[in-house]
Amino acid sequence: MTLDRLETPAAVVDLDRLDRNLKRGADYTREHGFALRPHIKTHKSLFVAAAQLRHGAQGLTCATPFETEVMSSICDDLLNAYPPVGADRARRLLAVAPKSRITVALDSVAAVDNIAAAARAAGRKVGVYVEIDVGMHRVGVTSSANAIALARYITAQPSLEFSGVELYPGHIRESVESQDAALEQLATELSRTLEAFDDAGLTPPTVSAGSTPTLWRTHELPRITEIRPGSYVYNDRTTTAIGACAWDDCALSILTTVVSTTVAGQAVIDAGSKALGREPVRGAAGEGFGQLIEHPEVLVTRMSEEHGMLDLGTSTWRPEIGERVRVVPNHVCVTVSLYDLMYGVRGDRLETSWPVDARGRGHKPVPNA
Amino acid sequence: MTLDRLETPAAVVDLDRLDRNLKRGADYTREHGFALRPHIKTHKSLFVAAAQLRHGAQGLTCATPFETEVMSSICDDLLNAYPPVGADRARRLLAVAPKSRITVALDSVAAVDNIAAAARAAGRKVGVYVEIDVGMHRVGVTSSANAIALARYITAQPSLEFSGVELYPGHIRESVESQDAALEQLATELSRTLEAFDDAGLTPPTVSAGSTPTLWRTHELPRITEIRPGSYVYNDRTTTAIGACAWDDCALSILTTVVSTTVAGQAVIDAGSKALGREPVRGAAGEGFGQLIEHPEVLVTRMSEEHGMLDLGTSTWRPEIGERVRVVPNHVCVTVSLYDLMYGVRGDRLETSWPVDARGRGHKPVPNA
Repeated sequence: MTLDRLETPAAVVDLDRLDRNLKRGADYTREHGFALRPHIKTHKSLFVAAAQLRHGAQGLTCATPFETEVMSSICDDLLNAYPPVGADRARRLLAVAPKSRITVALDSVAAVDNIAAAARAAGRKVGVYVEIDVGMHRVGVTSSANAIALARYITAQPSLEFSGVELYPGHIRESVESQDAALEQLATELSRTLEAFDDAGLTPPTVSAGSTPTLWRTHELPRITEIRPGSYVYNDRTTTAIGACAWDDCALSILTTVVSTTVAGQAVIDAGSKALGREPVRGAAGEGFGQLIEHPEVLVTRMSEEHGMLDLGTSTWRPEIGERVRVVPNHVCVTVSLYDLMYGVRGDRLETSWPVDARGRGHKPVPNA
Repeated sequence: MTLDRLETPAAVVDLDRLDRNLKRGADYTREHGFALRPHIKTHKSLFVAAAQLRHGAQGLTCATPFETEVMSSICDDLLNAYPPVGADRARRLLAVAPKSRITVALDSVAAVDNIAAAARAAGRKVGVYVEIDVGMHRVGVTSSANAIALARYITAQPSLEFSGVELYPGHIRESVESQDAALEQLATELSRTLEAFDDAGLTPPTVSAGSTPTLWRTHELPRITEIRPGSYVYNDRTTTAIGACAWDDCALSILTTVVSTTVAGQAVIDAGSKALGREPVRGAAGEGFGQLIEHPEVLVTRMSEEHGMLDLGTSTWRPEIGERVRVVPNHVCVTVSLYDLMYGVRGDRLETSWPVDARGRGHKPVPNA
């Protein structure tokens, strides 16, 4: 079966590129002696997670309870890198297979209380990372003193274990001109924080770092023991723009069909915001919502839900109605979560497909509705 | 069962508001003698479509083949308001229940050829609307002469029937300061176009108009016979901002939990771009990606995939971790398509739930993969 049989829009993964990306991540991790705990939010698929485990991942990182549930069928060492706030969230995490080791990341006493109670009720022990804010100002404890106080509070809970600290330097992608200076500053601050933990007698067993944007420079940070890269399996326009991969490393694209050419200087494809997502290119100059593989000078510059408007002003290409092109999205994690199924290709040959198993929330219907 | 039992983030529909919105749309349509053919892309649910049919809709409008397939189980008069380009798309449309009347909208000879061939192969007759561009510059034939030539080409196909013209004045929401002047201009141009069709002996049996932004003023346009509103069932921040509904008419919100408050002046909820969508407020001043029902002065100002950052600088509200709030999204059609299930509530009582049946593409796995 070949690619031209697929109904568009469809999410297509170049299997050779996927293999290469998986190997590159594993090689880097091995070279620097890190544990690899990839974040599955990018692909949400057992098929890709299993490949990551075959490439030496010691466990998996998830963001939602549903992701953790789904991944527990193939992995017994699961980090839920998200505050376990709310009785239901913590309870759902504790309901995954009893053989699994569960770790959570959190930044508040309230979250500790939630997960401690759920662990106690389930008769299980849960590992806890203290999330520290290293500059992104999203979640994370904002001072060493507070982080140490929280770690001490965790050690006082019989159902919990203080397993380490976690950081996510997402701001280095988003707002810092020079990665060099930002990484150097981060290294200095991280050293100081970890020394404060040492001085308090709470040396973190694990120091867990993200992320794909700074993935290949993680070894410049002190005392990292584990990394949690996500996007590196598929890559996207943003990963390319910030120099964390080459354009030819983008493994996922959306196969589309040109459906209209009535407006001069424009062609319309059947992939809009419901097929690509409306994410900006981050961390570097870049416009539009996607870029064509066959004609990289052409961008998706406007979108409706099911229409993507291609600006042909930058190109001599004049498509026929019915012509097919592939679009590399700006932020692959968001694009993937719009699909139920990924198609795997080698060249033009459609080799396999796999479900996006952990897409959505796994919500249950109201009984007797 | 009450709302506080729901795991967050969850999509919640206020059933009283939904009922009121359905009735308002039906009443307006009846008052002006239009046929009502609501666009189901907003809700993608048989539950809501069935309610629209009970309220007097004579048929349904869909954008994708999968939407049309799903809706064919409850409705036998289906408009696919999207160019049927690509052999697979046309074939899939023709495969829906033989008792159904299928109409498509298109703007090119290539699309006519595609649907004519598929209709011929299926031994069925398909209705065709000629889509005319009235200023949005997305799809649609851009001159009366070309539109008439296309209608004539359609009448020459034995498997097709020229059923009318379709317009979508989406630009009046997006870029025009004064709706008055824009609608007046549109009315003049539409009159002229329809007279040209009359003069050519091709008077359109149907003149089909969108959309929610200008829904309540459709009667100011000449010779409209049918309307295709979408968002009016749920409404959203954009519909409110452009004055097409009141804030209290927003029926859909995302129930979320506050999961972190470490950063001063900020609270983080568990709904980010994978739960809200990253759509702007259109057609009027408005920032952020969503607005709280309980604290309308608070907006979601930044997002990651699973984090929504609330700016508390505009409010005296200081949430506890674990507190729950509901967010009205900017563009409800995109938000709904992120969910598998909608929860229906009256007040705090969880009354029912229904699937988002036509979410995704209904793609088939590769055989023997």
